[in-house]
Amino acid sequence: MTTARSQSWFDVFKRVERSVWFQGFIISIIIIAALTVGAKTYPLPYSVELAINYLDTLITVFFLAEILLRFITYERKREFFKDPWNLFDSVIVIGSLVPISNTDMVLVARLLRVLRVLRLVSIIPDLRVLINALLKAIPKMGYIALLMFIIFYIFGAMGSIFFEDINETLWGDIAISMLTLFRIATFEDWTDVMYETMSVYPLSWMYYVVFIFLTAFVFLNMMVGVVLEVMSRETSAEEQQHQEDHHQALVEQISQLQQQVQALSDKLDRKD
Amino acid sequence: MTTARSQSWFDVFKRVERSVWFQGFIISIIIIAALTVGAKTYPLPYSVELAINYLDTLITVFFLAEILLRFITYERKREFFKDPWNLFDSVIVIGSLVPISNTDMVLVARLLRVLRVLRLVSIIPDLRVLINALLKAIPKMGYIALLMFIIFYIFGAMGSIFFEDINETLWGDIAISMLTLFRIATFEDWTDVMYETMSVYPLSWMYYVVFIFLTAFVFLNMMVGVVLEVMSRETSAEEQQHQEDHHQALVEQISQLQQQVQALSDKLDRKD
Amino acid sequence: MTTARSQSWFDVFKRVERSVWFQGFIISIIIIAALTVGAKTYPLPYSVELAINYLDTLITVFFLAEILLRFITYERKREFFKDPWNLFDSVIVIGSLVPISNTDMVLVARLLRVLRVLRLVSIIPDLRVLINALLKAIPKMGYIALLMFIIFYIFGAMGSIFFEDINETLWGDIAISMLTLFRIATFEDWTDVMYETMSVYPLSWMYYVVFIFLTAFVFLNMMVGVVLEVMSRETSAEEQQHQEDHHQALVEQISQLQQQVQALSDKLDRKD
Amino acid sequence: MTTARSQSWFDVFKRVERSVWFQGFIISIIIIAALTVGAKTYPLPYSVELAINYLDTLITVFFLAEILLRFITYERKREFFKDPWNLFDSVIVIGSLVPISNTDMVLVARLLRVLRVLRLVSIIPDLRVLINALLKAIPKMGYIALLMFIIFYIFGAMGSIFFEDINETLWGDIAISMLTLFRIATFEDWTDVMYETMSVYPLSWMYYVVFIFLTAFVFLNMMVGVVLEVMSRETSAEEQQHQEDHHQALVEQISQLQQQVQALSDKLDRKD
Repeated sequence: MTTARSQSWFDVFKRVERSVWFQGFIISIIIIAALTVGAKTYPLPYSVELAINYLDTLITVFFLAEILLRFITYERKREFFKDPWNLFDSVIVIGSLVPISNTDMVLVARLLRVLRVLRLVSIIPDLRVLINALLKAIPKMGYIALLMFIIFYIFGAMGSIFFEDINETLWGDIAISMLTLFRIATFEDWTDVMYETMSVYPLSWMYYVVFIFLTAFVFLNMMVGVVLEVMSRETSAEEQQHQEDHHQALVEQISQLQQQVQALSDKLDRKD
Repeated sequence: MTTARSQSWFDVFKRVERSVWFQGFIISIIIIAALTVGAKTYPLPYSVELAINYLDTLITVFFLAEILLRFITYERKREFFKDPWNLFDSVIVIGSLVPISNTDMVLVARLLRVLRVLRLVSIIPDLRVLINALLKAIPKMGYIALLMFIIFYIFGAMGSIFFEDINETLWGDIAISMLTLFRIATFEDWTDVMYETMSVYPLSWMYYVVFIFLTAFVFLNMMVGVVLEVMSRETSAEEQQHQEDHHQALVEQISQLQQQVQALSDKLDRKD
Repeated sequence: MTTARSQSWFDVFKRVERSVWFQGFIISIIIIAALTVGAKTYPLPYSVELAINYLDTLITVFFLAEILLRFITYERKREFFKDPWNLFDSVIVIGSLVPISNTDMVLVARLLRVLRVLRLVSIIPDLRVLINALLKAIPKMGYIALLMFIIFYIFGAMGSIFFEDINETLWGDIAISMLTLFRIATFEDWTDVMYETMSVYPLSWMYYVVFIFLTAFVFLNMMVGVVLEVMSRETSAEEQQHQEDHHQALVEQISQLQQQVQALSDKLDRKD
Repeated sequence: MTTARSQSWFDVFKRVERSVWFQGFIISIIIIAALTVGAKTYPLPYSVELAINYLDTLITVFFLAEILLRFITYERKREFFKDPWNLFDSVIVIGSLVPISNTDMVLVARLLRVLRVLRLVSIIPDLRVLINALLKAIPKMGYIALLMFIIFYIFGAMGSIFFEDINETLWGDIAISMLTLFRIATFEDWTDVMYETMSVYPLSWMYYVVFIFLTAFVFLNMMVGVVLEVMSRETSAEEQQHQEDHHQALVEQISQLQQQVQALSDKLDRKD
């Protein structure tokens, strides 16, 4: 069915979709969408709010058109779904199709519109590269995160067992205790929590000091790990290539010399 | 006494103990044990609590069986106690044998059950490696920790001497003062403590500012030390091996060349 | 019009302007200006305040004379405006010409006088180098800063949508929400904010925990990026030069050897 | 006057002073001195306090004897004063000669006794090395510290000019303002300070946010600077030596080869 005509349309779409001015136009629309999201948090006169709602519908339609256009430009439709950024954009655009009506869904619909700001990340290539780099750093952190979780879980259970009767709001069950421990790990009014339990268990300061030392120590090592990971990835690659080039240059030069000496040896043989 | 039959039993035990599915099974049991520990911190209907208690007994019996099985698979029993992870597991398993009865020991017994979650660390090889790496970083910190302790001790004594009459809860004796200083080092409501003493000694802000600078400065250096320690250990080893390989390659190539020249020289000698 | 006489004046100005004692004299005047700025924040007897005002006028006149002198020493006047530090000094000096009269401008005029302390940065060469180095680190941070702003914007909008009815002072509109989020990012009484919203939305702790993790994670990566940037700029340059020198030395030595072997080969040819 | 007899006494003193058991003995005495300092902060029965006072006198006498012994072991007395650690010890020992009587000096005298704990730093060689390393890191920080001070001074003056009428306790004069800014730099209840001034100047949040960004940014760079400084000092030295060794080995091997070829050439010449 790919007639010459549909093919020419296909090329037009592709050229439009990849042109710099179209990319710039989309970025402008996303920024306008972000501004309407921000504007809506202020008290506005009815007429402005109405205008924003119309604008919002326009933006939604435009985003839908843009994602369809992008879908069309893929010759193999399956490829479209293989790029996670396409999926990311599609989910955000489809999510904002939920209408803002005066029901319980109004908050959710507004929330989904807020997420349209995230499209800035997928449309600006440098941000996309940055996000990819950040995501690559996560697996390396996996086991440290598991260790951290085990520490929180054990201290959470201990806190819940010993301090539940002292303050149920802070130590009621293991989930609440872990939230309290997260608060302590950020040093946020942790002494208030400590002084309260110390009035019953005078030695409970050890619980807090040990917990703070453990989390700080493990966190410090996580940080070191990430620094090392990124460092060995970025700097060494280039530097090693450089050393490799130097080494190859020397090896080749000495090989030439060996051939010269061999030629000399052959010359002597011939003279005999 | 090692008859053929007991030998075959020994091999069966060994194969079971080292099989992947058995390791996975233990990990599942540990996670179930962790979940029961967490569940107990919530208010539960009596029937569920009873079920959990039975499950708890089952888990205890299983852990005991598992550690005995592991002990049996060691041909030289002394080897078993040489591996610190075996000792670690044994202590945790034996500790959870304390029965949960309605006496004063109930809290301790529950605490010992909480520690069973730590077995996750000893059963997952990657976590074991991680912990070993973290432990290796500690000795390097030794003298910095001693220096930090001396700073805390001196400032603790000073605080206790000057501020005891101002607020006995914070500066009553050197131990309480050091806890207060730890709080100040985490920046937790430290100005409240300072403003209180400044009303008596207007210049006491110097005490706090100097203390904060000293601890921050020493801590910063400790961090730098650890980063360097880990860095020189990990990255350089590999890189130096690489450089060493390159160097050896060049040395050998030049040696070959020397032999060629020597052969040429010998050929000339023979011609005479 | 550049007669011999004006030329000699020009040289005198130039010599004065670049002399070490003149630089030292300017630094002294700036420090005195800084001290008067500080002194004015204390309650002073009328006579001292009057003296300071006269001193202030003197300093203003001196700074004006100094900047004019510097302007004169440039042969091509356009060069003067090309050095950003000259522009920086000129703006500060002209800014402090605003008279301190008892009008609404008095605070602004005093503020402009405070900025004269900044001239210390432009007059001390090492500080100028330091500032240049710091400014160079900023572009590298650009995209991370944009990403951080997007995170703040999205969470600000979300906070304003969900929590506005709970506490208008903290979540009234998107600008106020972003200030509140900055406060949360510094861990400053963030649990008070959280507990307030948790009384309405019990799951809102997820909002805070996710936000803290995201900002901490992105900030951590920003820090790593800056460290790497500075590191690769400073250390590698010197080290690579060193390796380059070594490599060149070997290449030349082997080249000499090749010429020797070539000479040997020629000698054999001649003998034939 | 250095007769044979006084010479032999001199040698005995020297041998005693440098023996391991004497060093260990001094460390024990310092630890006992530290413990008495700590013990005195607790309420003690009169008899124990009396005993501690006697012990204190004994320690003072011992320290005096020890420092005199060390002074004697120096052949050239001027050398003694050239070692800063000797001066450090002497000042501490002489300082603790102030008697603890029931006058206004009692606090100062107790304070001087507390400083005796610092002698641990000068007696343990590893701590001495550590302190020397820390002190070496300070000059590198000099200009950054000056820049930080200028930032604090300018913001302090600005805060005092604008906010003095709002809260005199926090912004009364430039010194108090700088202390308040230090508090803000540690994020300690900084929003309370901000909300207070925002009620008068609604835009004053910019003052705080800019200040926090500036200090955090400059501090971050200071940290990076220290890390780099230490890194280039420690790791590179060893590594560069290694590379230098490799390079020399290659240079020498090729030189040998050149001599071999030269010998070959000479042999050909002789044959003519």
